[in-house]
Amino acid sequence: MSVVLKPNISKKEETAVLREIKKLGYKPHVIRGVERTVVGAIGDERTHQTLESLATWPQVESVMPVQKRYKLISREGHPANSAIDVRGVVIGGKKLQVMAGPCSVESETQLLKTAHAVRAAGATILRGGAYKPRTSPYEFQGLGQKGLKLLAKARAETGLAIITELLSETQAQLVAEYADILQIGARNAQNFQLLIAAARTGKPILLKRGLSMKMEEWLLAGEYVLANGNPNLMFCERGIRTFETYTRNTLDLSTIPIIKKESHCPIVIDPSQGAGRADLVAAMCKGAVAMGADALLIEVHPTPAEAWSDGAQQVSLEVFQRLMEELKPFIAAAGRE
Amino acid sequence: MSVVLKPNISKKEETAVLREIKKLGYKPHVIRGVERTVVGAIGDERTHQTLESLATWPQVESVMPVQKRYKLISREGHPANSAIDVRGVVIGGKKLQVMAGPCSVESETQLLKTAHAVRAAGATILRGGAYKPRTSPYEFQGLGQKGLKLLAKARAETGLAIITELLSETQAQLVAEYADILQIGARNAQNFQLLIAAARTGKPILLKRGLSMKMEEWLLAGEYVLANGNPNLMFCERGIRTFETYTRNTLDLSTIPIIKKESHCPIVIDPSQGAGRADLVAAMCKGAVAMGADALLIEVHPTPAEAWSDGAQQVSLEVFQRLMEELKPFIAAAGRE
Amino acid sequence: MSVVLKPNISKKEETAVLREIKKLGYKPHVIRGVERTVVGAIGDERTHQTLESLATWPQVESVMPVQKRYKLISREGHPANSAIDVRGVVIGGKKLQVMAGPCSVESETQLLKTAHAVRAAGATILRGGAYKPRTSPYEFQGLGQKGLKLLAKARAETGLAIITELLSETQAQLVAEYADILQIGARNAQNFQLLIAAARTGKPILLKRGLSMKMEEWLLAGEYVLANGNPNLMFCERGIRTFETYTRNTLDLSTIPIIKKESHCPIVIDPSQGAGRADLVAAMCKGAVAMGADALLIEVHPTPAEAWSDGAQQVSLEVFQRLMEELKPFIAAAGRE
Amino acid sequence: MSVVLKPNISKKEETAVLREIKKLGYKPHVIRGVERTVVGAIGDERTHQTLESLATWPQVESVMPVQKRYKLISREGHPANSAIDVRGVVIGGKKLQVMAGPCSVESETQLLKTAHAVRAAGATILRGGAYKPRTSPYEFQGLGQKGLKLLAKARAETGLAIITELLSETQAQLVAEYADILQIGARNAQNFQLLIAAARTGKPILLKRGLSMKMEEWLLAGEYVLANGNPNLMFCERGIRTFETYTRNTLDLSTIPIIKKESHCPIVIDPSQGAGRADLVAAMCKGAVAMGADALLIEVHPTPAEAWSDGAQQVSLEVFQRLMEELKPFIAAAGRE
Repeated sequence: MSVVLKPNISKKEETAVLREIKKLGYKPHVIRGVERTVVGAIGDERTHQTLESLATWPQVESVMPVQKRYKLISREGHPANSAIDVRGVVIGGKKLQVMAGPCSVESETQLLKTAHAVRAAGATILRGGAYKPRTSPYEFQGLGQKGLKLLAKARAETGLAIITELLSETQAQLVAEYADILQIGARNAQNFQLLIAAARTGKPILLKRGLSMKMEEWLLAGEYVLANGNPNLMFCERGIRTFETYTRNTLDLSTIPIIKKESHCPIVIDPSQGAGRADLVAAMCKGAVAMGADALLIEVHPTPAEAWSDGAQQVSLEVFQRLMEELKPFIAAAGRE
Repeated sequence: MSVVLKPNISKKEETAVLREIKKLGYKPHVIRGVERTVVGAIGDERTHQTLESLATWPQVESVMPVQKRYKLISREGHPANSAIDVRGVVIGGKKLQVMAGPCSVESETQLLKTAHAVRAAGATILRGGAYKPRTSPYEFQGLGQKGLKLLAKARAETGLAIITELLSETQAQLVAEYADILQIGARNAQNFQLLIAAARTGKPILLKRGLSMKMEEWLLAGEYVLANGNPNLMFCERGIRTFETYTRNTLDLSTIPIIKKESHCPIVIDPSQGAGRADLVAAMCKGAVAMGADALLIEVHPTPAEAWSDGAQQVSLEVFQRLMEELKPFIAAAGRE
Repeated sequence: MSVVLKPNISKKEETAVLREIKKLGYKPHVIRGVERTVVGAIGDERTHQTLESLATWPQVESVMPVQKRYKLISREGHPANSAIDVRGVVIGGKKLQVMAGPCSVESETQLLKTAHAVRAAGATILRGGAYKPRTSPYEFQGLGQKGLKLLAKARAETGLAIITELLSETQAQLVAEYADILQIGARNAQNFQLLIAAARTGKPILLKRGLSMKMEEWLLAGEYVLANGNPNLMFCERGIRTFETYTRNTLDLSTIPIIKKESHCPIVIDPSQGAGRADLVAAMCKGAVAMGADALLIEVHPTPAEAWSDGAQQVSLEVFQRLMEELKPFIAAAGRE
Repeated sequence: MSVVLKPNISKKEETAVLREIKKLGYKPHVIRGVERTVVGAIGDERTHQTLESLATWPQVESVMPVQKRYKLISREGHPANSAIDVRGVVIGGKKLQVMAGPCSVESETQLLKTAHAVRAAGATILRGGAYKPRTSPYEFQGLGQKGLKLLAKARAETGLAIITELLSETQAQLVAEYADILQIGARNAQNFQLLIAAARTGKPILLKRGLSMKMEEWLLAGEYVLANGNPNLMFCERGIRTFETYTRNTLDLSTIPIIKKESHCPIVIDPSQGAGRADLVAAMCKGAVAMGADALLIEVHPTPAEAWSDGAQQVSLEVFQRLMEELKPFIAAAGRE
């Protein structure tokens, strides 16, 4: 930590700060600058108590941490890329993976039709929500276990692996029985109890970025998964909340090089949530592929206008097939398969 | 809903939109404007499927809902203010209530010392976290049930009612046994499963605003509580996330008149989280009281610099006592007690 | 500056950093911590070149400034409050001042009617835009010099001082001939050429906060005024842009204690722009007064629904008069007149 | 416009709204829905006064515009792409253009060395600031006219066209004498007087997006240029301000498909300002090219750590050359040259 002192404080006030720094387990080291005195506090910031509380003292101007707060998730201690094998589909390897399917599982017909179509177009993982977190209690909340069973049936028929959202600690075991990847949604990205429960199922976890989550917070939420014994984590950018209203969210594609730099875990891009508009999905996918995303997560529906949830951001089966074609030269340019 | 059509579309394309609107259960009503044709779709937007998915159609420019999505929480259907009685302490009545105490329960000495001091200064409810949601898995996570027991002891000694945070669905019953008010934190404000579990305990709920929650989303999260049979909800503004870094959050005091206008539920202001800086707490409290807040939620610690969590935003016992004195003329000016 | 080095770098890489720090005019001071080495760079950060560019070096993790970048505006070097005398009306003194009037000057009748009414209700300064910055080129752009003349006429009739917006460097002399205070609008808050031109007229300046301006940037924009020889600066908070759409902007009342802490200049609150909704103005004013604002800037119009600009945020003459009455107890509680 | 009325208002209150709508020049058309009555107001929203002021009336719940506010800039009235010819370099055509050079012009050596290097690597336009808008008055403000002369010399030596920033209305003629493209910076994006002065020089304009500018505001700022007789406008996304602090700004690449959809003007991406970090520039460029950007604007400096401004985001000559190589497959994949 660096503790910056206010100018013109007394010797006694300075000494009190040094004493408190020692009391909290750090070794103080004073540097007298031109206008400010800075105290370097030497010690492991992760195991000692934070010194940030010192900012409440009148003689202290600011306190700045210098150490990174995440460890297991960090590329620093794990230089090689992590790859996650899901029923033979490797995320984080040379092949770009595409996860596609409806926002919500609505019926056997809807799901199977979509599953066959996305598989034919080249997707390797089927997405579909059985439990849906909805802003209003009056909106469709998902088919629940019936939806999970339909997903399992679609997997049996198509061979696609399954990703679906986990909403509740109490359902972690149940959802893990059916799903190949557990998705943690943006609104639960700092629901740490849910992260721990999900981690303990041993299933691979896809962790969406929260609506206003800083990179450090996202990496630390991922740290909860690894610290609970589950190494199979992938991050998923799905757009952040900004002042812009033209799009539902602002897809932050800079997360791709940043996650690759800070962490060894794969990064997945969700252009459907990311823009909230079907007409922007194709361009977003191209950008994501070019920038090095490991996988895409795309919402596809046979008749988007009649979808039971988030219809405005789902593409039709035809649009999806065309998109997969259009992506090919970019996948090649990115050196992926 | 208002469905705005693109200019220069064919009659056939327009007819297809009208047909789909009917199919989705609304009655279309066409208005031809100077540059745009708008279709008013008549029907109850809460019970029918949303028409927003129509925005995926090429001939549709935009879809605008006109109806409010919340109902039980709304002042429209419940014109009188709701007041919540917690062990004789009424929140939402004439008296301004002050909830005060440490961020985390750390020890019996720390808690009891604080409880006696805040009671002597005029607080009527004791706050303290037993389960703490922490950004990093390596930070102090709260004393757990031991913390709950200390809170109960403090209540027995001082007569103060208790508010503490609920983090996990699986702990709803346990925390409800000890607490008089269940707090739902900002990071769980759209953890709907937790909201439902909390509502079903029957205890009063204090719902913090999420870090980037729009007013409508906050009101709808509150709707989950009322729709699950619990009328004792209060909203708590604790600052939103913006681009500003001088303060940890931006306390949005406009929530006071807005919640009063849109809803019948009480509104509480948390200036400690709201600014993240102890030196701004007093001014924030004065503004909140003047604008009509029903209660304040203030973090107080005997030695903030040594707090185990969020020390930078906690005020000392002396500062708290002085603050309570300074608030008196503003409470009187606001016509409160 | 504190320069944080990456772990596991070679001695040679470290030496290169120390050499570059010296080359850029600072004295390096090495502190070896548990996981990171930090180099304190001693020197005046305002006169030397910034070291932040060192962050491009592969062996550097981050660079953190420790010194404040503003000087003349800072309370550190000027502990007493500055007060500004405008035709005998003192802003920043014991009396709370109210600046009121229409968004735009539209006609002699509209302006004079408003001026007399706001004066009768207790306002001491008349606001009114003669040059209007409008989002669209097709919107009313203000009456120009004719508007300035009407403002001068209103001043002659009522004795109220005049505040009006300056939009263009080329009009600085002209507007300064008529106005008692020059307003710099939010969209020009970092138009440094305009700030310099305004400062050089010698007239008092009211500097609105930009839509997404950090505190430090705002203080530095004010520094441009003082550094160009004009000490009569007041800051004006008018709401920042956030994700929230219920209000047009989010009024950040924490600016009141922050400006008071960091600077000696007065702080004015604009609740009309701040919320963009007439129905929130009264509550915002009460909060602002309680928190220590030196003045309020309120938009008032005889018939808001027919205003030529920003009608939704203007209050009527009757509402304004009632508001001035309602503020009295809060002004007294705040120890103001 | 759609005017939504509150429920349970009297017939008289409704009639008053209809009368006012007529008075303001629109034809009202009533639609009675299940819970709300909506009045469609028929008329040209660009030429009539806005009805948004009606929101101040107690019986009105909200007012929603339905018409687009921009016209000349809109693809609706101009379906073909516009291309801008700058000394034979076409922006908005089949060839992807690269504008590169230092943040600030510092010296003849620095500029010429950079100009030759970027030209050799494939850039066709040289960027360089002669007038610099700086957050602090104590920072380097640019070489002024001397900088313009150096740019002209670099053009003469290399044949590269020149883009440089215009900061002041009073310098529009001067800068236009030297520059081939006038850049309007983010902080001046709604400095309408500057936009008008720039437009009137007749030179092509590159309009950066403001730090918190919504798409509609950006398009309308562009409308100011076209409405003042200058058709040669290009938009430039340079990152928006969000809560994220890892990057200086959040580069919003969704602007590429959005500008292409809404407007006929070219779109340029500035990855240097966009991220504020040199290590993210290459990935950002790849994404921009894949998504269909017409040009890139990249900051390049011979020794970034010693740059007089914004060193942290400038890439070295070597990195730039490598980047240009790496972009080739993506340019081909995007069907550009």
